[in-house]
Amino acid sequence: MIPEKITSIDKLINITSKDMGRVNDLIIQRTLSDTEIIPKISQYLISSGGKRLRPMLTISASQICECKNDHHISLAASVEFMHTATLLHDDVVDDSSMRRGKISARMLWGNEASVLVGDYLLGEAFKMMVDAKSLESLEVLSSAASIIAEGEVMQLVYSNNINISEEQYFKIINNKTAKLFSAASEVGAIISDSSTDFRNSLRDYGQFLGIAFQLSDDALDYSSTNDALGKDIGDDFYEGKITFPIIAAYRKSSAIEKKVWEELHNKVDKDHDDFNTVLELLGSKNAINITLDEAKKYGQKAIDALQVFPKSDIRDALIEGAHFSYSRKS
Amino acid sequence: MIPEKITSIDKLINITSKDMGRVNDLIIQRTLSDTEIIPKISQYLISSGGKRLRPMLTISASQICECKNDHHISLAASVEFMHTATLLHDDVVDDSSMRRGKISARMLWGNEASVLVGDYLLGEAFKMMVDAKSLESLEVLSSAASIIAEGEVMQLVYSNNINISEEQYFKIINNKTAKLFSAASEVGAIISDSSTDFRNSLRDYGQFLGIAFQLSDDALDYSSTNDALGKDIGDDFYEGKITFPIIAAYRKSSAIEKKVWEELHNKVDKDHDDFNTVLELLGSKNAINITLDEAKKYGQKAIDALQVFPKSDIRDALIEGAHFSYSRKS
Repeated sequence: MIPEKITSIDKLINITSKDMGRVNDLIIQRTLSDTEIIPKISQYLISSGGKRLRPMLTISASQICECKNDHHISLAASVEFMHTATLLHDDVVDDSSMRRGKISARMLWGNEASVLVGDYLLGEAFKMMVDAKSLESLEVLSSAASIIAEGEVMQLVYSNNINISEEQYFKIINNKTAKLFSAASEVGAIISDSSTDFRNSLRDYGQFLGIAFQLSDDALDYSSTNDALGKDIGDDFYEGKITFPIIAAYRKSSAIEKKVWEELHNKVDKDHDDFNTVLELLGSKNAINITLDEAKKYGQKAIDALQVFPKSDIRDALIEGAHFSYSRKS
Repeated sequence: MIPEKITSIDKLINITSKDMGRVNDLIIQRTLSDTEIIPKISQYLISSGGKRLRPMLTISASQICECKNDHHISLAASVEFMHTATLLHDDVVDDSSMRRGKISARMLWGNEASVLVGDYLLGEAFKMMVDAKSLESLEVLSSAASIIAEGEVMQLVYSNNINISEEQYFKIINNKTAKLFSAASEVGAIISDSSTDFRNSLRDYGQFLGIAFQLSDDALDYSSTNDALGKDIGDDFYEGKITFPIIAAYRKSSAIEKKVWEELHNKVDKDHDDFNTVLELLGSKNAINITLDEAKKYGQKAIDALQVFPKSDIRDALIEGAHFSYSRKS
């Protein structure tokens, strides 16, 4: 019996540990370049305590589909490289100074190197996909690459736009976050030559998990602590990202409160007082809990998508991953 | 009989025009996205009068190898997308305000959008490669993607380093420029199921052509006019890029002149007077002509690489392209 709230992914970590060891070795190997700054920046970010959830999804999907070859290793590594490239570029786009509790790469090596090393990792990601010799996997992952970028552009376009609809918000997080979770899971099935049913289920599982993960991320950005988050809370607000907690609170706001929201988001230099106002408004509308409830709904959808698989340790681990996606503390 | 200097690629343009029409249609189609800013930025750059040399190489390589399928079209479009993505990111890295005689995309839409739309185009490039269903082509082009980024990083690392060796310089231009010319030509052969001989020859042709093209680019940046170049001359100097003209002049300099070179490159804010000093120093060492002679040498190597093909109109057009690479005026 799985308890209501699980805040670890230990089961998933344990069951994938052997393969993830190989993924990590490949990752280190593929960051090597005679141009020293490339392995330096790549490894700084990759070894900075990320959860490696995405490659773990590829590995666990291939395990539940009883993969008989080794290609899931390079696909998992390529998924992590895609993610790392996105982080490097995101930090440049967002002017971020912190990432995972450390000074961001762009603060140490500059925006220029962050953009270019991100490009390098994207190139290496595609090389590793090609190594897996699966055109179907390549199709899924290359589509994901452009959809992720499209989601990031949409997010930029909707900066500080308090009138963003829930539908637009979900399209953005589906593209910028859930798509890679979904593709990571799906290619684990593809490379295992699984049935279409299994493939579709894992694709859906990844997608719902990704949405739950992003919703909880959005909640944590207003409710966590700097230490737990590894970066300053409130980043989304200061960067003008309108996320689910804001949408939920705005919807329940009076005309006067709506005016306050609009003024807050029209300000060019948002300060600490503004952030405290936001926290109060969110609190008065119970917006964090509403967001976490929404996250839980998607976590449950992810679990439902796994019904097609017979009960097994790996299925339990994936279910635990879904619970983690909405109940995590960091 | 081909005259000594040819400054057009009309033959190449004419002989590839039908296929290039299809490439252009595909390019427009693949920039479409509901997120308006994506087609806007992409088309702004793509339709801004670039020569489309790289996709033209894919098309002409497939023609000389008598391609019997249609996949060369999507490969050619993907090559142009890779190039366009690089331009968008380069302008961010170099803080460029002009590109092809127009205000650069980053000045109009910001660095953030330029980085992200570049990523989008890279994703679309890979999708089009996958459409061509050739793992060998994918291998060549994905390798090119990371090598290009590696070359750009190397260039960044060697900024303002007047002691860069000729070998290091050639490694940089080989990676950042020649690799894509080479890959563009090679995949034209691969997709046509050509012999290994033809494939290797076209790969070499593209590589030598790319080196000649970059050497002449480096010369033009000190010897052209703003109008012809479509951007300010002297950009390389102001951006701290040590290119072949500088290396050639520095090598021939006296100890005192070398000191001047070093001081010039150690200055944080290089001004117009500094640039005039550079022009004088380059002139006194005949550095532009030395660079153009070097470019011509590589142009000739490109032509030699075509010897394996029987005489034909398409071979003549490719030879003309090689002459153009070192004799072009813009």
